[in-house]
Amino acid sequence: MPHINLDNDLPGIRGLLSFRPETAGPMGQLANILLRDDEGISRAERELIATHVSYLNDCFYCHTSHGATACQYLNGDKALVDQVRKDYRNAPISEKLKSLITIAASVQKSGKAVTPGQIDDARRHGASDREIHDTVLIAAAFCMFNRYVDGLAAKTPMDLASYDARGRQIAEKGYGNHIFSTPQPVSI
Amino acid sequence: MPHINLDNDLPGIRGLLSFRPETAGPMGQLANILLRDDEGISRAERELIATHVSYLNDCFYCHTSHGATACQYLNGDKALVDQVRKDYRNAPISEKLKSLITIAASVQKSGKAVTPGQIDDARRHGASDREIHDTVLIAAAFCMFNRYVDGLAAKTPMDLASYDARGRQIAEKGYGNHIFSTPQPVSI
Repeated sequence: MPHINLDNDLPGIRGLLSFRPETAGPMGQLANILLRDDEGISRAERELIATHVSYLNDCFYCHTSHGATACQYLNGDKALVDQVRKDYRNAPISEKLKSLITIAASVQKSGKAVTPGQIDDARRHGASDREIHDTVLIAAAFCMFNRYVDGLAAKTPMDLASYDARGRQIAEKGYGNHIFSTPQPVSI
Repeated sequence: MPHINLDNDLPGIRGLLSFRPETAGPMGQLANILLRDDEGISRAERELIATHVSYLNDCFYCHTSHGATACQYLNGDKALVDQVRKDYRNAPISEKLKSLITIAASVQKSGKAVTPGQIDDARRHGASDREIHDTVLIAAAFCMFNRYVDGLAAKTPMDLASYDARGRQIAEKGYGNHIFSTPQPVSI
């Protein structure tokens, strides 16, 4: 049960966004820009970074829902998403993405945990300044989203199929105010 | 020196916001809504929460700049801001604000670190659901801002007077795109 009375029964962050629409607007826009940008790292890679950071933060709602969205971009390859979630170093992904997830994992601990060596490594594997920027900000933003969801004890559905349905919806329509302001056919 | 080439010499988060204006927009709006809301906890209290969380995250740029902004709302009482930064439990602030900062300090560790007892305590001291919500989101948002600034090793001025000048500007005009998109007379 959420720590506060949300006056709605929406799951996860959606219940919180609906409770406080003023802050929901920019949060939805930020997610949309960071996770659906097509320059540099792909939408799948952006969602994988978000999924791994949410997993490190032990936020079940976020790593399951963003993992489901990543899966949509990866032809339904749940095994790959699960390996990136738990053991990205041995996952069949590019060395460039591995180096960026390493940076994201440092950001999850602390901004100061990012080292020049990690940045150099990402560059050596072809990462641009913009890709490094977006990786750091995605990781930092999920340190916010994860804490928002768990810090208010948002409702966390345990029905995994509902996350898949939500992932399809996000992959198709994106993040933003419409997520909670219009009736949705699925329950996440 | 920043980890990436920002193509500008702006200090702290301003250099990052200028590098990537697409994400700067919603981030500025979020700060503006969370820190300059006049319902419930005051602007001074919101800035004090942000300052304490940034101090816990060891983000010098953020805790100094937000401390300077808090100071503007508190008749220049730097000693009070510094005590809240380092030892809020013994600071001359309300029991309600202490209970909210306790929640914020838990959020800084992890969303899951917030306990029902901490929420009950805040309620007992008169905190509303909206105030608890905003406290959790301010703390979560600064876990993002702090990681963004330090994760990219943004330029951190050591000239404390420039933070005071910036604090006056923020207290007067607020956060948002104009912060970095128009010429500013001060150096933070």
